[in-house]
Amino acid sequence: MRDVARRAGVSLSTVSRVLRGAPGVAPEVRQRVQRAADELAYVVSRNASGLVTGRTGRVAVVVPFLQPWFFGVVLAGISDALREADLDMLVYQVGETRARQGWTRALPLRRNTDAVVTVSMDLSEEECHRLDDVGVPVVLVGQRVPGRASVYIDDRAGAAGATRHLLNLGHTRVAYIASLSGTWSSTSSRHRLEGHEAAMVEAGLAPRSVAKATGHTGGELAMGELLSDHDPPTAVLAEFDDIALGAYRTLRRSGVRVPDSISLMGFDNHDTAAVMDLTTVDQAPYDTGLTAGRLTVDILGGTAGRLQVEMPTQLILRQSTAAPRGTRGLFS
Amino acid sequence: MRDVARRAGVSLSTVSRVLRGAPGVAPEVRQRVQRAADELAYVVSRNASGLVTGRTGRVAVVVPFLQPWFFGVVLAGISDALREADLDMLVYQVGETRARQGWTRALPLRRNTDAVVTVSMDLSEEECHRLDDVGVPVVLVGQRVPGRASVYIDDRAGAAGATRHLLNLGHTRVAYIASLSGTWSSTSSRHRLEGHEAAMVEAGLAPRSVAKATGHTGGELAMGELLSDHDPPTAVLAEFDDIALGAYRTLRRSGVRVPDSISLMGFDNHDTAAVMDLTTVDQAPYDTGLTAGRLTVDILGGTAGRLQVEMPTQLILRQSTAAPRGTRGLFS
Repeated sequence: MRDVARRAGVSLSTVSRVLRGAPGVAPEVRQRVQRAADELAYVVSRNASGLVTGRTGRVAVVVPFLQPWFFGVVLAGISDALREADLDMLVYQVGETRARQGWTRALPLRRNTDAVVTVSMDLSEEECHRLDDVGVPVVLVGQRVPGRASVYIDDRAGAAGATRHLLNLGHTRVAYIASLSGTWSSTSSRHRLEGHEAAMVEAGLAPRSVAKATGHTGGELAMGELLSDHDPPTAVLAEFDDIALGAYRTLRRSGVRVPDSISLMGFDNHDTAAVMDLTTVDQAPYDTGLTAGRLTVDILGGTAGRLQVEMPTQLILRQSTAAPRGTRGLFS
Repeated sequence: MRDVARRAGVSLSTVSRVLRGAPGVAPEVRQRVQRAADELAYVVSRNASGLVTGRTGRVAVVVPFLQPWFFGVVLAGISDALREADLDMLVYQVGETRARQGWTRALPLRRNTDAVVTVSMDLSEEECHRLDDVGVPVVLVGQRVPGRASVYIDDRAGAAGATRHLLNLGHTRVAYIASLSGTWSSTSSRHRLEGHEAAMVEAGLAPRSVAKATGHTGGELAMGELLSDHDPPTAVLAEFDDIALGAYRTLRRSGVRVPDSISLMGFDNHDTAAVMDLTTVDQAPYDTGLTAGRLTVDILGGTAGRLQVEMPTQLILRQSTAAPRGTRGLFS
């Protein structure tokens, strides 16, 4: 820092103020100091500056898994928001840890981070309290908890809207494929099923759902079961796109044409949904991440407004849904 | 460095010049020094001895983008390896930063991390040197640079093997869809195309390739172009699965059946490749991440053996490839 001060021709305390981003330095001086620091390849050590400000300059993001598409996209949004505020992003994948022990205690969160963002962690009341003990702000993504900062979608409304799309096409035998609720996102799973069932009941129809293990395989098996029903469905809504793609595979292998014989619909607007022409519900995970990241920054800066943000969902109609064969719906 | 000099039979200053990439060293000598450095598992880290005073317990992982499937899976592997060693993972997404300025200087790497792992960054010589200035070990994933710790696949061999699969089925009109090389992974792109062309030439056939923008859209457009050739191909190999899925979409919409009329093949073994029954080349990104993470831990612990690890690729045969109609290949 002394070298930077000498090169820029300013005092040591001015350099310190500029590098910490503190106010009260003329733009021209600030620029000179930054140029000098650049030239000397000086980078503020987070550890050292933390001693001064009490901040680490880091935000921890906790996800169950890193592999599924959804988490990469949410992380991209969070990362961009944190970068804007010059904050670093620590990522913790706790899939395995959670079963073993209290992950909130296992992770070195205390004094390592200024805030914690959890993504689709479906935290219990007790886990929330343990996170409070870490002593930093917590932002929940994909879960709404009263009184806590959360960014989420309305899963019930999304699934109800998707179901109504199928009903409006003229389908009366509509089935739903659910994932067997595991440790993660079980609230979202439950809400989607509830939304679907509510729309069915509202239309005077009996709901029919099959629950299987999550992902492609579950969708594959569930569709096999539905195809052997007494009265197979003419339209199927899956809890999320990966399940729908698994169901699609069974249909393709069985020679059942989509949407000619069966309409198929997912939820998520996964990358692959577009290229597969799959009708689905978009939930904008990048925007969700960006919003959660900015909310975190605002909370740290003491400028946060509303702490609960509901992100919009959007029906995306593609070629995998149509009116049932030989019938007439609202639009045929 | 002294050990490297002794083993290569050159002076200390020659070793220094080679490892810094400075000019004025005969190619033959350069190669000898690099081989000696490889054998001695010498980590090029010019400032390491001067700068490393304490450990931060953190490793920085630098990726171009977080959204594509590949990066999530690699990160999962790295994360698991670092967790085993009780190290935290900082993630930097530099997609936007790179064009603007030297990202190596823009990121607060110095004194914030014990090591840096770059994933599919296709670093230039200059960028490598600037990373050296950070003063911590650097591990490259998806890129092989002599004398540097790297974990990579043999893209040439993978693409050549994929092409031979199509040739062995009896195809003679085989086309290749490439992505227009952008800033990222252009070396890998080049190597895959080279591998494909080498296999074609070896079989006495003229290569035919189309290059379009990357991803689904590129595949869609490229397949449209191929379908309007004088003599359309009976088999198509795409540089990676997402391109193949885009090409598949064009075929589906045009009523061209896979594999009855055209065999289609990807590269990556993307999640969706399985559910789409797409023949492809698996490159095990999770294992690549795990290996890179463990190599990083070993380097930090001073127990690293070989610094260059080539990960195996594996042909995955599914239903999207078959012998051309009305002909007989090796197996029909």
